[in-house]
Amino acid sequence: MTFSWLKGHGTENDFVLLPDHDGTVHGDLDPTFVAALCHRRRGIGADGVLRVVRSAATGLPSAAEWFMDYRNADGSTSEMCGNGIRVFALHLVQEGLVDPSGPFLVGTRDGDKQITVDGDLVTVDMGVAEVRGTTKVTVDDHVWEAQDVRTGNPHAVAFVDDLAEAGALTAQPEYDEVVYPDGVNIEFVRRLGADHIAIRIHERGSGETRSCGTGACAAAVAHGLDHPSPVGSTCRVDVPGGTVWVTRGPDGAVALAGPAEIVARGEMEWIA
Amino acid sequence: MTFSWLKGHGTENDFVLLPDHDGTVHGDLDPTFVAALCHRRRGIGADGVLRVVRSAATGLPSAAEWFMDYRNADGSTSEMCGNGIRVFALHLVQEGLVDPSGPFLVGTRDGDKQITVDGDLVTVDMGVAEVRGTTKVTVDDHVWEAQDVRTGNPHAVAFVDDLAEAGALTAQPEYDEVVYPDGVNIEFVRRLGADHIAIRIHERGSGETRSCGTGACAAAVAHGLDHPSPVGSTCRVDVPGGTVWVTRGPDGAVALAGPAEIVARGEMEWIA
Repeated sequence: MTFSWLKGHGTENDFVLLPDHDGTVHGDLDPTFVAALCHRRRGIGADGVLRVVRSAATGLPSAAEWFMDYRNADGSTSEMCGNGIRVFALHLVQEGLVDPSGPFLVGTRDGDKQITVDGDLVTVDMGVAEVRGTTKVTVDDHVWEAQDVRTGNPHAVAFVDDLAEAGALTAQPEYDEVVYPDGVNIEFVRRLGADHIAIRIHERGSGETRSCGTGACAAAVAHGLDHPSPVGSTCRVDVPGGTVWVTRGPDGAVALAGPAEIVARGEMEWIA
Repeated sequence: MTFSWLKGHGTENDFVLLPDHDGTVHGDLDPTFVAALCHRRRGIGADGVLRVVRSAATGLPSAAEWFMDYRNADGSTSEMCGNGIRVFALHLVQEGLVDPSGPFLVGTRDGDKQITVDGDLVTVDMGVAEVRGTTKVTVDDHVWEAQDVRTGNPHAVAFVDDLAEAGALTAQPEYDEVVYPDGVNIEFVRRLGADHIAIRIHERGSGETRSCGTGACAAAVAHGLDHPSPVGSTCRVDVPGGTVWVTRGPDGAVALAGPAEIVARGEMEWIA
């Protein structure tokens, strides 16, 4: 089986893109194939796969011409990926598949997302961040109060004086399983200024990661609870894999901006 | 720049292969390009690059037709790689570049190596393993006596009752810097039988790895000090990424056998 592919990343959250415009190349992606492709040593290696397909070819509801069919590295589907959609959108622009002179929509299983692309900086409207109150997270007997913030994914945001405070993060931090029955992504946040934070992220099922789009948004929103700022203001979020920016919209909405990069492309024959 | 590539692995030690038969495509590989290609998130991701070039095009001394121009993930050169040469040799066979009906030579910076290929099982003569005596390694105040074995690379081989004994291996174990001025690869070995061991490997500069060809050889040789076996006998070595076999040759020589796999191939345009 020979097919086109690209590899790209956003703040070191990396993806294999599979152009399949009319859904005739890959169709319903086999989860086993996705997992093998994403395996970092037995495959190409990626955090996920982005199938590039016209919405009309998916049978899924979307007003966007192009649909991001996102798969996790284990082959399962996810509704949305804040870093993935930025890489996906940059690819659409680079291939001339959308008009980048204004905002455009990209379809996802979490609905259509509005995107703007300016050079390699891609901004995506991430919807409303819901602040639910306080909870607790624990690493090695160290307990932090944390903010429960929902940004598509459930997050617990804890503030630290030093990012090393959370230790090696090789084990799952403890959290309230009543509050988070489906698990939780945990952000440890160091405040660097009224509009600047640095974070580490522990993702459910993945461990510590280099970047997390919804996590950056949750962290910026939790930080803003103590540093209120007007609609339109932007918080810089340093993640281990780079820097993203979270802009406050009306009614609790947030937009995520950050770099995206396509590093390689070509034809591939999958053998294994 | 568009070029052919392949991705392969041997017991999860993985490589990008760059065919460059006459040395006209890549020439002297730029270390920056190699490092970018091997970066697991900003590139394709691999433990190293194997440039496939005719010995005659390298200017290096070799009686073999084909030369493995091996580069580490950081772009530096290494003389030899026991897992890499098995992937390299399988590629030569699959492309019809060598006659696999008998042994053949592959040139390396450590000299020409004799290879036999039987299906996906590739055996490489690794030369003489030199046993130098005992030394010590330490992890978190736990001290083990270790055998100092040289198999192209310097190794310290410690025997454990349980592979978990060495802990998370996230930090560099302590070793005798007088014995190993250039650093050392450390193997923790559990004896499973007279001809069967399981190992974990901590490689200098890389941390814990999924497999190490010279390390498997060193571990089998150290194990054989207490379980003497005749020339021609084979020790099974379970590594985290699979299984390899080490066969005792005459005069301290060892041969390493194990699976190799090419998982994908194609044309690539490097963008980043």
